[in-house]
Amino acid sequence: MEEKWDGNEGTSAFHMPDWMQIQFADQKQEFNKRPTKIGRRSLSRSISQSSTDSYSSAASYTDSSDDETSPRDKQQKNSKGSSDFCVKNIKQAEFGRREIEIAEQEMPALMALRKRAQGEKPLAGAKIVGCTHITAQTAVLMETLGALGAQCRWAACNIYSTLNEVAAALAESGFPVFAWKGESEDDFWWCIDRCVNVEGWQPNMILDDGGDLTHWIYKKYPNMFKKIKGIVEESVTGVHRLYQLSKAGKLCVPAMNVNDSVTKQKFDNLYCCRESILDGLKRTTDMMFGGKQVVVCGYGEVGKGCCAALKAMGSIVYVTEIDPICALQACMDGFRLVKLNEVIRQVDIVITCTGNKNVVTREHLDRMKNSCIVCNMGHSNTEIDVASLRTPELTWERVRSQVDHVIWPDGKRIVLLAEGRLLNLSCSTVPTFVLSITATTQALALIELYNAPEGRYKQDVYLLPKKMDEYVASLHLPTFDAHLTELTDEQAKYLGLNKNGPFKPNYYRY
Amino acid sequence: MEEKWDGNEGTSAFHMPDWMQIQFADQKQEFNKRPTKIGRRSLSRSISQSSTDSYSSAASYTDSSDDETSPRDKQQKNSKGSSDFCVKNIKQAEFGRREIEIAEQEMPALMALRKRAQGEKPLAGAKIVGCTHITAQTAVLMETLGALGAQCRWAACNIYSTLNEVAAALAESGFPVFAWKGESEDDFWWCIDRCVNVEGWQPNMILDDGGDLTHWIYKKYPNMFKKIKGIVEESVTGVHRLYQLSKAGKLCVPAMNVNDSVTKQKFDNLYCCRESILDGLKRTTDMMFGGKQVVVCGYGEVGKGCCAALKAMGSIVYVTEIDPICALQACMDGFRLVKLNEVIRQVDIVITCTGNKNVVTREHLDRMKNSCIVCNMGHSNTEIDVASLRTPELTWERVRSQVDHVIWPDGKRIVLLAEGRLLNLSCSTVPTFVLSITATTQALALIELYNAPEGRYKQDVYLLPKKMDEYVASLHLPTFDAHLTELTDEQAKYLGLNKNGPFKPNYYRY
Amino acid sequence: MEEKWDGNEGTSAFHMPDWMQIQFADQKQEFNKRPTKIGRRSLSRSISQSSTDSYSSAASYTDSSDDETSPRDKQQKNSKGSSDFCVKNIKQAEFGRREIEIAEQEMPALMALRKRAQGEKPLAGAKIVGCTHITAQTAVLMETLGALGAQCRWAACNIYSTLNEVAAALAESGFPVFAWKGESEDDFWWCIDRCVNVEGWQPNMILDDGGDLTHWIYKKYPNMFKKIKGIVEESVTGVHRLYQLSKAGKLCVPAMNVNDSVTKQKFDNLYCCRESILDGLKRTTDMMFGGKQVVVCGYGEVGKGCCAALKAMGSIVYVTEIDPICALQACMDGFRLVKLNEVIRQVDIVITCTGNKNVVTREHLDRMKNSCIVCNMGHSNTEIDVASLRTPELTWERVRSQVDHVIWPDGKRIVLLAEGRLLNLSCSTVPTFVLSITATTQALALIELYNAPEGRYKQDVYLLPKKMDEYVASLHLPTFDAHLTELTDEQAKYLGLNKNGPFKPNYYRY
Amino acid sequence: MEEKWDGNEGTSAFHMPDWMQIQFADQKQEFNKRPTKIGRRSLSRSISQSSTDSYSSAASYTDSSDDETSPRDKQQKNSKGSSDFCVKNIKQAEFGRREIEIAEQEMPALMALRKRAQGEKPLAGAKIVGCTHITAQTAVLMETLGALGAQCRWAACNIYSTLNEVAAALAESGFPVFAWKGESEDDFWWCIDRCVNVEGWQPNMILDDGGDLTHWIYKKYPNMFKKIKGIVEESVTGVHRLYQLSKAGKLCVPAMNVNDSVTKQKFDNLYCCRESILDGLKRTTDMMFGGKQVVVCGYGEVGKGCCAALKAMGSIVYVTEIDPICALQACMDGFRLVKLNEVIRQVDIVITCTGNKNVVTREHLDRMKNSCIVCNMGHSNTEIDVASLRTPELTWERVRSQVDHVIWPDGKRIVLLAEGRLLNLSCSTVPTFVLSITATTQALALIELYNAPEGRYKQDVYLLPKKMDEYVASLHLPTFDAHLTELTDEQAKYLGLNKNGPFKPNYYRY
Repeated sequence: MEEKWDGNEGTSAFHMPDWMQIQFADQKQEFNKRPTKIGRRSLSRSISQSSTDSYSSAASYTDSSDDETSPRDKQQKNSKGSSDFCVKNIKQAEFGRREIEIAEQEMPALMALRKRAQGEKPLAGAKIVGCTHITAQTAVLMETLGALGAQCRWAACNIYSTLNEVAAALAESGFPVFAWKGESEDDFWWCIDRCVNVEGWQPNMILDDGGDLTHWIYKKYPNMFKKIKGIVEESVTGVHRLYQLSKAGKLCVPAMNVNDSVTKQKFDNLYCCRESILDGLKRTTDMMFGGKQVVVCGYGEVGKGCCAALKAMGSIVYVTEIDPICALQACMDGFRLVKLNEVIRQVDIVITCTGNKNVVTREHLDRMKNSCIVCNMGHSNTEIDVASLRTPELTWERVRSQVDHVIWPDGKRIVLLAEGRLLNLSCSTVPTFVLSITATTQALALIELYNAPEGRYKQDVYLLPKKMDEYVASLHLPTFDAHLTELTDEQAKYLGLNKNGPFKPNYYRY
Repeated sequence: MEEKWDGNEGTSAFHMPDWMQIQFADQKQEFNKRPTKIGRRSLSRSISQSSTDSYSSAASYTDSSDDETSPRDKQQKNSKGSSDFCVKNIKQAEFGRREIEIAEQEMPALMALRKRAQGEKPLAGAKIVGCTHITAQTAVLMETLGALGAQCRWAACNIYSTLNEVAAALAESGFPVFAWKGESEDDFWWCIDRCVNVEGWQPNMILDDGGDLTHWIYKKYPNMFKKIKGIVEESVTGVHRLYQLSKAGKLCVPAMNVNDSVTKQKFDNLYCCRESILDGLKRTTDMMFGGKQVVVCGYGEVGKGCCAALKAMGSIVYVTEIDPICALQACMDGFRLVKLNEVIRQVDIVITCTGNKNVVTREHLDRMKNSCIVCNMGHSNTEIDVASLRTPELTWERVRSQVDHVIWPDGKRIVLLAEGRLLNLSCSTVPTFVLSITATTQALALIELYNAPEGRYKQDVYLLPKKMDEYVASLHLPTFDAHLTELTDEQAKYLGLNKNGPFKPNYYRY
Repeated sequence: MEEKWDGNEGTSAFHMPDWMQIQFADQKQEFNKRPTKIGRRSLSRSISQSSTDSYSSAASYTDSSDDETSPRDKQQKNSKGSSDFCVKNIKQAEFGRREIEIAEQEMPALMALRKRAQGEKPLAGAKIVGCTHITAQTAVLMETLGALGAQCRWAACNIYSTLNEVAAALAESGFPVFAWKGESEDDFWWCIDRCVNVEGWQPNMILDDGGDLTHWIYKKYPNMFKKIKGIVEESVTGVHRLYQLSKAGKLCVPAMNVNDSVTKQKFDNLYCCRESILDGLKRTTDMMFGGKQVVVCGYGEVGKGCCAALKAMGSIVYVTEIDPICALQACMDGFRLVKLNEVIRQVDIVITCTGNKNVVTREHLDRMKNSCIVCNMGHSNTEIDVASLRTPELTWERVRSQVDHVIWPDGKRIVLLAEGRLLNLSCSTVPTFVLSITATTQALALIELYNAPEGRYKQDVYLLPKKMDEYVASLHLPTFDAHLTELTDEQAKYLGLNKNGPFKPNYYRY
Repeated sequence: MEEKWDGNEGTSAFHMPDWMQIQFADQKQEFNKRPTKIGRRSLSRSISQSSTDSYSSAASYTDSSDDETSPRDKQQKNSKGSSDFCVKNIKQAEFGRREIEIAEQEMPALMALRKRAQGEKPLAGAKIVGCTHITAQTAVLMETLGALGAQCRWAACNIYSTLNEVAAALAESGFPVFAWKGESEDDFWWCIDRCVNVEGWQPNMILDDGGDLTHWIYKKYPNMFKKIKGIVEESVTGVHRLYQLSKAGKLCVPAMNVNDSVTKQKFDNLYCCRESILDGLKRTTDMMFGGKQVVVCGYGEVGKGCCAALKAMGSIVYVTEIDPICALQACMDGFRLVKLNEVIRQVDIVITCTGNKNVVTREHLDRMKNSCIVCNMGHSNTEIDVASLRTPELTWERVRSQVDHVIWPDGKRIVLLAEGRLLNLSCSTVPTFVLSITATTQALALIELYNAPEGRYKQDVYLLPKKMDEYVASLHLPTFDAHLTELTDEQAKYLGLNKNGPFKPNYYRY
């Protein structure tokens, strides 16, 4: 099956059974109009994919040697005798457990939540159905929700991203998990259905990543929403779908948009890309950064991160922008602001971070110098017009995983990374610490929605209250042995602030 | 007369005539409660002050040798025979003209506006009364407003900040200017009154900096507001006053808050402080930055600028914060987050950037090591508890202008800069380029308010429309020979944007 | 066979046949006393090794599926009918050729030398026997030497590092190459012997990497030295051996030490490590650098590179040093200078770059916090006392290739990378550009020695003349589109310099 | 009297009495041929000069109000009744003492030497005659020499640089000082003579800065050298003179060149210029660095410092170089290497750091854009062809101290700083910490020469032994609370080093 999803979004409509296709086709079109730069949230999505070819992946997964029987056809029981799960191979649990334990060490905030939960169980009574990537980090989240009192049932939001060993470990410790790597479309929806369609159990909270779970319930079990207290959604795509539902007056429970919290945005974009641009380029090309001329298209958070990192490594960086304010920032940060045409003949690397389409055109590609590296850190696979390179006079040569040489008749080679898909998603990994911030935000959003007094949230899409955003940040400070200063009563009064925050007005830019 | 204003705000109530005192005393109290960090706008205010002792000041002003006659008592005429002005000495016009010409070279945006005005006069018919610092940069603004079609009358918003030569040059070229350096309180209000109380001329626009002009008209000539189309205010204090009026239902014309535009904020805080912290410390102490241990209190825009600069110069920087999100940013940017107590014994420099009060207490000062430098980049003079150092056992020694040694009984010396007032305001200068951004924003706000169709703006306080903020930025790009990329029609459609902006949603953080 | 060589040096004595062992055992001891920090030259050595597990390796080498017949037992001919070579599989030539072509694109200096050689053949008549790593970059060097007029015969200096496809490509195009990946000790010496022991052909130049070829000739064919014009040696170990020979009065031809040229040192250490520390840490641990506390032991060129990179990525870096001058540099560059004990409990990463032994002791390891990462960028595998961790109470867990968790009885885990061997050698790759500088230096040294008038070089070890060092640098400038300024006659006279260099005195520090 | 010395060198021959002129004229010519970049040592020389117009100078010296009587005609006694001195006004001693005390706080190494001297007096019996700038820092050095057991007599090496208050303080505490600000040529030599021509006292050590004292003794009292144990000289000029004497076989005592020690070189050039380029530009022009395009001519230590600082402040920096090795370093550090012509039309600032002449020609100046700033950080005043700007069609306008506008007929203005003389010398100050390193080096060199066993030093010019260079560095580490690691016996043996150093071979590049 061809990989169609654009990497940076929730699972797209093609997974949908036929009877849902028409409607989604329309929605799909809607998505393409989406104007704003999308978050880097789905970095987590890269894990399984890149783990198969990455040096740094958690090594020796034995999928290839596995038997070919579909998990749906297997009879498996965990050691406690339960068979309420469907994973590739329950016997891989031990290996998965180790991965979970390693992840726990870098997810201090969730572990701190667990400790607090020894006294109170803020999710006691919660019945959460989840649909996310199933990785060691997700496992830490799920087990934290469990420790906080919740019952969970879980499916994968992507047919490739499940780490089978982790799924096995979760199943072994009693979580009804329905997911494996390499699901078919039919499997995908079957798994989701197994999560929600259970006798004697009905979810009262939804944790979704991409909106597929939410839509399944909308289509198949709309009555379930009567008992559901809220939806927590973290993907750009899923959030977009929710806003559309809300606009159409069809959203029947409160939903929390955790994609746009400050902490998450800054980590997923600025701080993470600052590191992953270097990582992605090195792993694919082994190039030296020093002295290289680079043009970065777009100076949003992602572009800022890429530029800062490359400048620090001794590259000479040019920036293109459409927005004069970001352009002025680029100037003040020491980057020459150019049009792509002005430098396209001289640069060694072209990086797109715009969220736009056709930023790098065939004409640009024709004018690049030999050995120029072209890659995308921005959004989906539209920024570089890769399709324009699929013409007969150009030869494609796959030289490494994720690395193609596109060769012109005169011998000129362009080095295209990840076929124009997201470089950091395809060719590097996401630090657990970043995922920890996302997972903690999800947990807090669930707690908030579940415990909110009636009336606080209506049938609308909400941002995480700033105070909780601050709380997520504060839970991650101990990792850095960072010590926060507390306001004195006198100072709090002077500033007109509550000593526990929130500390900034909503429009504060950080 | 004692200097009472805290440097970072508009002229305070003490200038007011008696009959206004009571009411303002109340307002003053209000100001002190103001919770948010104030902008750095009033940096411009520093110019006259620091120019008297700064190496870099515009040199040979001859005030000291001037005669002592009050300008109010002099009979002066400019070369065209007009005497509708009151300045120190009209003969200084030539020197002032040169300063204005130099400033013009670094205010490209205003000069660009003038060029565009050759065809259309967007301020034709505008009668602007202004009350700002009177410097070469202001002169460029005023002459630009003139070129755009406006008539102007002007007073100074600060009794010390007027550059007499510039005022003379403006008077010489026909601007009714009423201002000199060293006005008395009575002079101050007399000058303002001379601007507005004119036979046969009534203002229809107000450009204010601190709110004094606005208040004078409110108190003395409330009927004038019938013809006034709007107020443009740039100071934190003035904006605060406007919001209070608005809240109280007393604001009777639209007002534009230009203090909070993106471009202005970033320049006045992040970019400007990144340079002025180094400048201020060098000019006062000649210290070497390399290897020095520094603690920066507060990691907002100002703190971020200070930290980045000092780190780049080889200092080891610690940060204190109350807000966990800013704290996490400090961590990710490579600064150890500490409580002040943890490092107070070891640091060489303490810099406050909090907007808070008593951040550095006597207890902290007692524990600092010998030769520790203490200064404030934040807000007003409250951050360091300087008052606590006025005790008999401590000896104060003024070693240079703006530099005091405070000496403990055991011989320990603390180096206190600018007596805890703003370092950048007191001990460095503000680049014309920064002032250019402010002035351009003011000009555009005037044009917008003056030309807005009825009903677009009500009797409320408005932020500059994002599109105009972007326009200000775009006018400054040519300085950097920066070339903006234009969206294609197809791209604009894809992004759902107008090709001319605005390019970002209002909540975008830059 | 156990891997014994320490990675950073030439092939060690264990390859030697028995009859040479005793003598070398003594020498070996000598090597261990070697006081100075060794160069990073042998980074190239890492290629074959790391390429087997690295994501970024040149992919799909099919060695594993190859037959098990020893190349020595195969009958192979290239397409021109020659069988004067011995490689794994001549049929892999095409794949190897492509790798060579890719390498050519990043070795502009050698390609420039080839162009110049179209007119003159500075190596006409040269018969070069070489013993180096056999990689695509070496192939570019060999083919350049050929283009310059030389005849070459080549063996591998390391039993693991040969890229079989590249060796095949060289054999196919007519180079007598004797090398394959996975030679036995006997194979190793057999290959070297096949290079020199040829009827009707006698070498007149030696290019060595580690000194094994030189020693083989010394032992077996001492008479050959009568015709040999010189030796070019690039490894620390080989250079050390040459100095010993010289000291003992046994060096009978001039030798050129290319290890200590400025360009090579700066690239192999400062610039390369600045990038490879990030790369090595990311590929092994996927960690986030931002906010991490790191201690770097040693502030020589390698330490300087590591510190600069980590600081730029937002880490908080401490430095330890024994030399007060380097220590003062660390201070001025903004790093706190500490003893390891002071920070060992708090740091997240420990990196050694000292060239010393037991810099990180068991005591230090006992005190590290959970999850602390420990690695070595310095010299051989002595810096971290890894042996001390092989005790029964500690559990070792191999979690990924090159990554071990060492687990204390209380559950604390230390993450040990590459078992304390060189991180950049084991876990990252070396940019072709760095190898280009080394190869160009080797080529120029060969040309210089071959063409030097009699008497210019005696039977001693020489450094590359500064002018040639400058020439190597100048050949690499076009890569960066860098334009050198030429002195005018008047300026050259003023400075007392030749317009073509050398430009600096020998003691200049760069 | 016109100021002729070029700022960066010792006092030139014009001070010499007539009978010495001819010979020195020749030498002078020699100096001009001097090919190598000269050190920044004489930064200290700038103090008096810049102190007159610098904001940061030690304030309120009252020279101007002083009487006009020549100090040579005054009868002055210190409080102990001695009149063996000649200063401007002994009554200024108290003010000078405070300056000395302040300087002591930043000269920890000298203070540490004093402490050690409480037990032993390594300079007991030393009779030192000195000729240096007389500043607070020199005073700390002199009083340290006294504490170490030496008797001192002192004159100024520059007719402008003496701080009268400091001279008074030294005289008051018993040092025979002969110096004041504004000496005539005759005064200059009279003062030197008063130092050496004393009944009953003959010097046995010389501390010189520029070589004038040494030459005076050579010419007038050659017999004195019989008792003199050595000369310590720190200036480029003085060192050059000594090498000439040595070459001519006329040097009759050992001499120590302290100008070329590592610590001194790195501080005077790289670290100091990194800060002073920013300081010098800000104080003269108040410009903003962010976004500015800058070309730095020369990438030696000074150029490296300038480039690093400006890049860190957000400038876009281009570099020109003649040496391909330095050029390659510039590339790897992230600067585009260009010829001056390529960027001269577009840059905002031109900075020369070459040690060469006519690097910026009239042709370049003609092509610069309006408002371009031109300055020199390199050597003397030859780098910018300022003379070429003295043509009738150009108008010079002095806009501030050290700032000239040169105006072309079409109105274009170039901003020329310090008339092309050294910017850091003319427009910024030198941190005491840098002077501390120089002074400590001088003190140690005196101790070494004075105590060296006969035969260790011959009649030649020596560099400071590396071990003492390391010692100077170690004495400055406590300032940074820096803790050096000590080698274990085992490690020292492994490295073949003495535990106390020296730690590096002489050719080590740091």
